[in-house]
Amino acid sequence: MYENKTWPQAIPPIDEEARQKAEERMNQLTKPLGSLGRLETLAIDLAGAMADPLPDCDPAAVLIMAADHGITEEGISAYPSDVTEQMVYNFIQGGAAINALAKQANAQVRVVDIGVQGVIDVDSLRKRKIRPGTANFARTEAMTKDEVMQGLQVGWEEATDLARSGIRLLAIGEMGIGNTTTSAALVAAMTGLPVKQLVGRGTGLDDERVLHKIQVIEKALSFHSIDPSDPIDVLAKLGGLDVVGMAGAVLGAASQRVPVVMDGYISTVAAWMASKIEPAVLPYLFASHLSVEPGHEIVLNELGKTPLLALQMRLGEASGAALSFPLFQAACRVLREMATFSEAGVSGASE
Amino acid sequence: MYENKTWPQAIPPIDEEARQKAEERMNQLTKPLGSLGRLETLAIDLAGAMADPLPDCDPAAVLIMAADHGITEEGISAYPSDVTEQMVYNFIQGGAAINALAKQANAQVRVVDIGVQGVIDVDSLRKRKIRPGTANFARTEAMTKDEVMQGLQVGWEEATDLARSGIRLLAIGEMGIGNTTTSAALVAAMTGLPVKQLVGRGTGLDDERVLHKIQVIEKALSFHSIDPSDPIDVLAKLGGLDVVGMAGAVLGAASQRVPVVMDGYISTVAAWMASKIEPAVLPYLFASHLSVEPGHEIVLNELGKTPLLALQMRLGEASGAALSFPLFQAACRVLREMATFSEAGVSGASE
Repeated sequence: MYENKTWPQAIPPIDEEARQKAEERMNQLTKPLGSLGRLETLAIDLAGAMADPLPDCDPAAVLIMAADHGITEEGISAYPSDVTEQMVYNFIQGGAAINALAKQANAQVRVVDIGVQGVIDVDSLRKRKIRPGTANFARTEAMTKDEVMQGLQVGWEEATDLARSGIRLLAIGEMGIGNTTTSAALVAAMTGLPVKQLVGRGTGLDDERVLHKIQVIEKALSFHSIDPSDPIDVLAKLGGLDVVGMAGAVLGAASQRVPVVMDGYISTVAAWMASKIEPAVLPYLFASHLSVEPGHEIVLNELGKTPLLALQMRLGEASGAALSFPLFQAACRVLREMATFSEAGVSGASE
Repeated sequence: MYENKTWPQAIPPIDEEARQKAEERMNQLTKPLGSLGRLETLAIDLAGAMADPLPDCDPAAVLIMAADHGITEEGISAYPSDVTEQMVYNFIQGGAAINALAKQANAQVRVVDIGVQGVIDVDSLRKRKIRPGTANFARTEAMTKDEVMQGLQVGWEEATDLARSGIRLLAIGEMGIGNTTTSAALVAAMTGLPVKQLVGRGTGLDDERVLHKIQVIEKALSFHSIDPSDPIDVLAKLGGLDVVGMAGAVLGAASQRVPVVMDGYISTVAAWMASKIEPAVLPYLFASHLSVEPGHEIVLNELGKTPLLALQMRLGEASGAALSFPLFQAACRVLREMATFSEAGVSGASE
C-alpha cells in the first residue's frame, strides 16, 4: 500500500521563472527597496509556488479535519472527548472562532469528519470517517498503516477538490480533543527530543496534569518500537486521523500548486510529517502564527519556516491560519496593483 | 492660542461597562479560556474605546498627512524632497503600497496636503496646506507655534469628518521625505535619549549617511532651547506638518471614540506627541506593527503599546497600519459572531 502512493510524481517544483519575475517587479515598485519587509518575500514565494508572477490567493479556504483520539482515555485533556463532536456541530452552525475568522478573509470553511467517535449526520459535513476515533496509543497502535494511507487519500482528495473548485490558498486545521498529546508524541518519536520540551498545556492543563501528559507520552514511546525513517509507520503507531488527513491535504494542495497555510502545533506537525513522506511539499508550506504550545516553534524550526504572527494564540481550528489570510492576500495585491517608479513618475533613491 | 484648545473637554474616558461586558462575553465563547491570545484583549480594548460590547470597526479609513521637511537641505534622506509630491500623485492615482493594502481591508484612503512644498491641484486631494514645507530646523524653528495649532486643527477636523461619515477605525500615516529625521529629533528632545539610539536608515541610508543624520540632529538640538514639558513648543522647533497633522487626527478621532491605529516610527511619534498634549487619548491608541527603525520600539514602549505585527517593514504611508486592519476587524467579529458554550451546547473544561 505504502508503495502505491501517487504523490511523488504529482508534486511540481516551484516555478523559478515566475519567482524571478515577481522579484524583479517587486524591486521596481514605488517604495524604498525592501521596505515592505517580509510581505515582499511572502509575495515572491507565493509567485514561485503558484507559478504566477502576479499571484492572487483569493479565494482562500479552510479545511478542518475532525477526529477523536483514543489517548484521551489516559486523562490528558482538560476537555471531555465529546467536545470534538460538539464542536463539529458548532463549525457547521457557524458559531466557532474559525467561522468568524474565515468570514473576515472571505474564505469558506470545509469540515471533514475523518474519525470522530460519534455519528454526525448534518448535510454540509464531509463524511469521510476512516474509523470512529483512533485506539489509545499508550496501549496499542493508534491505527493500521492501511488506515493511515486511507486517511492521507481523504486529505489529498479534499484538498484537490477544493483546488479544482478555484481555491487558491488553503489553511489546514483540526478539531480533536487530545491532539496536542498525539502531536507531541509524533515529534518526540521523529526527532528523539525529550518529551517535556514538546508538551504544553493544550486547551488548559495545570502543572500536575502537564506532568501526567508527559509521563503518558514517555510510556507510550517506550512501548512502541519506533523507526523515524518510516513516517507512515510512526503515524500508524502514534498518529491521529486529523493529523493524517491534514498531511494528505498538504500533499494534495501542493500537487495543485495551492499554497498551504499551517496553523498551530498540530497542523504544523501534520505538514512536517507530509514533508517527511514527500519533501517536495516544502516550498508550498507557509507558517501563519506562533502558538504558545512550546513544541510548535521546534517543529517550525525543523521545517525552516517563520511565522507571520505571534499573538499568543492556542486554539487550533485553523484560527491563526485564517487570521493570516489577509496578509497573504495583501502580499499578492502589492505585486498585482502597485505602480513601478517609471509608471508613476517617481524619482528613485540617490546612490 | 495654546490655551484655546478644545480637546481636553472633548475626549471621553473609555466605557468601562462596555469593556466589562465584552470581557464577560469573551470568556463564555466556544473556545478554551484565553486561547485567542492577544486577539481577545484587542477586542475587549476596542469595546471599551468604542463604548460598544459588540464592537464593529468596519469601515476603516487611512488618513495620510503629506508634508515637506526643510531639514532635507542637510542631505539626510536617500530620496530627493520632490518625492513627497510625486508620491502624493501616486496615492491619488492608486499606485502606492497603501492603496493596495487599504483595498485589501476595504478601507478608503484620504490624502491631506498639510505642507507639501509644491502646489498639487488634483480633485480628490484634501488641500489643507499650512505652509509649503517646514523651515530647516538645523538653522531655525521649523514653524511657529501658531502653525502648530493650525496643523493640529486640520488633523482634528479631518479625523472628526471621517468619524462623522461613519468611519469606525482610523489609521494615521504620512508621506514626507526627511520625516524620520524630524521624528528622531522630537524623541531625543522629549526624552533626552542619545540621538544615535533613535536614528535608523530611513528609506535606505548607508552607515556614513546615518552618522551624518545623527550629527545634524545633535547640532540642531544644541541650537534650540528645548522644554520637553511644552510639546507644542517642541513641535514648533523640530516638528513636521505631517507629524502635527497626525497628532491632531489622534485628538479628533479620540473625541469621536474612533480607535487610532498607529503605523511606524513617524506616526507613532505623532500619536505620542498627541498623548503629551492630552493624555486622555492613550486608550484610543493601538499599535499595528514594529518597524525596523530603531526608535520605533522606544516610542512604543513609552506609550506602553505592543505591536501586533513584526514583519520588518519600514515604508510609512500607514502601510503597516492598513495591513493590520483585518486583525482589528477579526477581533470584533469574534465578539459579535461566535457562539457561547451554552448557545452551542458545547461542554466546558474540567476543573
